[in-house]
Amino acid sequence: MLTEWRRVHKRMATSLPSSHDKLLFTPGPLTTSLAVKRAMLHDAGSWHFEFNTLVREIRGRLLKLAGVRDDYECVLMQGSGTFGVESVLSSTIPPNGKVVILINGAYGERMLLMSQALKIAAVPLRSAEDKTADLAQLERLLRKDKQISHVAVVHCETTTGILNPIEEIGRLVSAYDKTYIVDAMSTFAAVQIDFGAADIDYLVSSANKCIEGVPGFSFIIASRSHLLSCDGYARSLSLDLLGQWKGFEKNGQFRYTPPTHSILAFAEALDELDLEGGIEGRAARYKQNHKTLLDGMRRLGFRSYLPPEIQSYIITSFYYPDDPKFTFQDFYRRLSDKGFIIYPGKLTQVDLFRIGNIGRLFPADIKALLNAIEETLEETEIKMETES
Amino acid sequence: MLTEWRRVHKRMATSLPSSHDKLLFTPGPLTTSLAVKRAMLHDAGSWHFEFNTLVREIRGRLLKLAGVRDDYECVLMQGSGTFGVESVLSSTIPPNGKVVILINGAYGERMLLMSQALKIAAVPLRSAEDKTADLAQLERLLRKDKQISHVAVVHCETTTGILNPIEEIGRLVSAYDKTYIVDAMSTFAAVQIDFGAADIDYLVSSANKCIEGVPGFSFIIASRSHLLSCDGYARSLSLDLLGQWKGFEKNGQFRYTPPTHSILAFAEALDELDLEGGIEGRAARYKQNHKTLLDGMRRLGFRSYLPPEIQSYIITSFYYPDDPKFTFQDFYRRLSDKGFIIYPGKLTQVDLFRIGNIGRLFPADIKALLNAIEETLEETEIKMETES
Repeated sequence: MLTEWRRVHKRMATSLPSSHDKLLFTPGPLTTSLAVKRAMLHDAGSWHFEFNTLVREIRGRLLKLAGVRDDYECVLMQGSGTFGVESVLSSTIPPNGKVVILINGAYGERMLLMSQALKIAAVPLRSAEDKTADLAQLERLLRKDKQISHVAVVHCETTTGILNPIEEIGRLVSAYDKTYIVDAMSTFAAVQIDFGAADIDYLVSSANKCIEGVPGFSFIIASRSHLLSCDGYARSLSLDLLGQWKGFEKNGQFRYTPPTHSILAFAEALDELDLEGGIEGRAARYKQNHKTLLDGMRRLGFRSYLPPEIQSYIITSFYYPDDPKFTFQDFYRRLSDKGFIIYPGKLTQVDLFRIGNIGRLFPADIKALLNAIEETLEETEIKMETES
Repeated sequence: MLTEWRRVHKRMATSLPSSHDKLLFTPGPLTTSLAVKRAMLHDAGSWHFEFNTLVREIRGRLLKLAGVRDDYECVLMQGSGTFGVESVLSSTIPPNGKVVILINGAYGERMLLMSQALKIAAVPLRSAEDKTADLAQLERLLRKDKQISHVAVVHCETTTGILNPIEEIGRLVSAYDKTYIVDAMSTFAAVQIDFGAADIDYLVSSANKCIEGVPGFSFIIASRSHLLSCDGYARSLSLDLLGQWKGFEKNGQFRYTPPTHSILAFAEALDELDLEGGIEGRAARYKQNHKTLLDGMRRLGFRSYLPPEIQSYIITSFYYPDDPKFTFQDFYRRLSDKGFIIYPGKLTQVDLFRIGNIGRLFPADIKALLNAIEETLEETEIKMETES
């Protein structure tokens, strides 16, 4: 019986002009190497000592990658990055605490939604989606409201691609002695983060971002002394960050079934990161991808949304062409047919689409995408205003 | 740089007398087929229409497998089975609700821990670990305490392997018009469950159990009318069951990054289940595995813990041999060296170990395990009291 999904699957495998999967120019899940995926061709026992050794090793490698001293701990958490962020918010804020959330995109808004679901007092501090937070306003808040215990921010808001100044914010948070939570989902391992300078208490990232693993879990780099002070705060069993850490410390195991295959893949991905020269090497490739993309898109007549000084080299938002014939759906579909998956915009007020350049993508892949975009514009006779 | 984890990994691959991974005789994660694992050699875009088609297809196939009419919905939830159970408890019990939890093992106890973390009123109704619930006592509770809104039970407590009578319990729950939650983690797709007869409102199971996929998500079969009545109950954003369903209905997508590779594997696993003849075919193999195991272990002189009438064909608990030379750790290690991973016990009062027979295991694998156990007993000169 050839079911509908199998037809889709087979179409995925046979409709392409090339032998590989469609390339993912998204904020994640990303294109990963074949070696990373092949590491999943094994079944590991989650209670078994060999697997536990691997988990311990991964936690240690992530701490090393973070460049922290031995006063930090690494906790892996099942689920997507959002689950990791919620585990921090729900486990580390005391019942009478209050969190300021700096918001300039969907992931900041999501933290606010979490606080509401968790019934945690929260103050949103919004800036425009192409602006970083107003630090004077943050300082006034911190000075005025003594109930505030935590400040949370998203490092790279993939909503637009904006990079928020986590060190500058961190110095202020530290001066007022508040707990600092950084969602570094899309930057960790690709952008250098100075834990000391930013005085970060909790950093959250995910397996399927710049480490180039597959989805299934997130990880949290946590100040040990702060984490140990959170007894009794958890508002959930599954997402209990301190409980999860205690489980690892007790017997090396996840408290509840881990995504064993994702973890095998992640170990391989960490190896590849080492081979590429660590964060520096990876950053160099992503920067090159970004430059290739931006130069090429400009040449084709596209305008990017953010000013260069706050534009990350993770993902870039582009305005729709002015030509009224352009529809994103058709553009997307045609690129998909050519083997390239881009990403829609997420803003309500401006029509944008996004192109990510993280994952197992190289400048040659970006150039191939640019060629496909140029072809698509020609096919659909979209007129662009190219610079003369 | 050959790191420690790589050494472990290579040891895993080379230390065996055979070319395959160690076989997992556990309650999960389980041994899966190579085809299921190979389905993960692809990167899928989680926003992409092809992937969404696959997700919709899987949700439909699970409903069909459950044999429910069209008044049920299927929701996939990231994380382990525990996350799925917590999503039900945290999303479907109103603020003034109260849940009776029938407990005869670790997974019932875990639901109680969840209720406590979630600050949901809960009444544990415990029976001995080798006894099913006292239904007269449950009825007295339901009659007496009008605040009770929900009753929750684990179908197969893999703590021991006991099978709880979910239909009998369900009829009582239904008579008192309460909401009925069944954790069918280790039985769904291997034990026939009559949703109508048991009047189940929420059933939870997981990708890496009897459907023989890999871990990464759980799934919930939910009464649509009940689910739709739960607006505003969710105590978490990530685990919001109704929110997750609304996301699927809105655009076919997971609200937050799904474990794309686990989902590709799951689709393949569902195909294999069909090929085996559905639930009936799978049950037949597991029953044969169980019989082979029980006969063989008895022949070697082992005694099983549970009386046959409540013993599932999912996992079996065995007493340690009486010989004081026996240590579980040595026994486990020697079997592991031979390529077989068994499972420790979970009871505090009785010394037991467990052997599962679900997953991609066949009677020939059980026989190979039995041979390895016999060899181990000989090597370590453990005396068994075999029946004459």
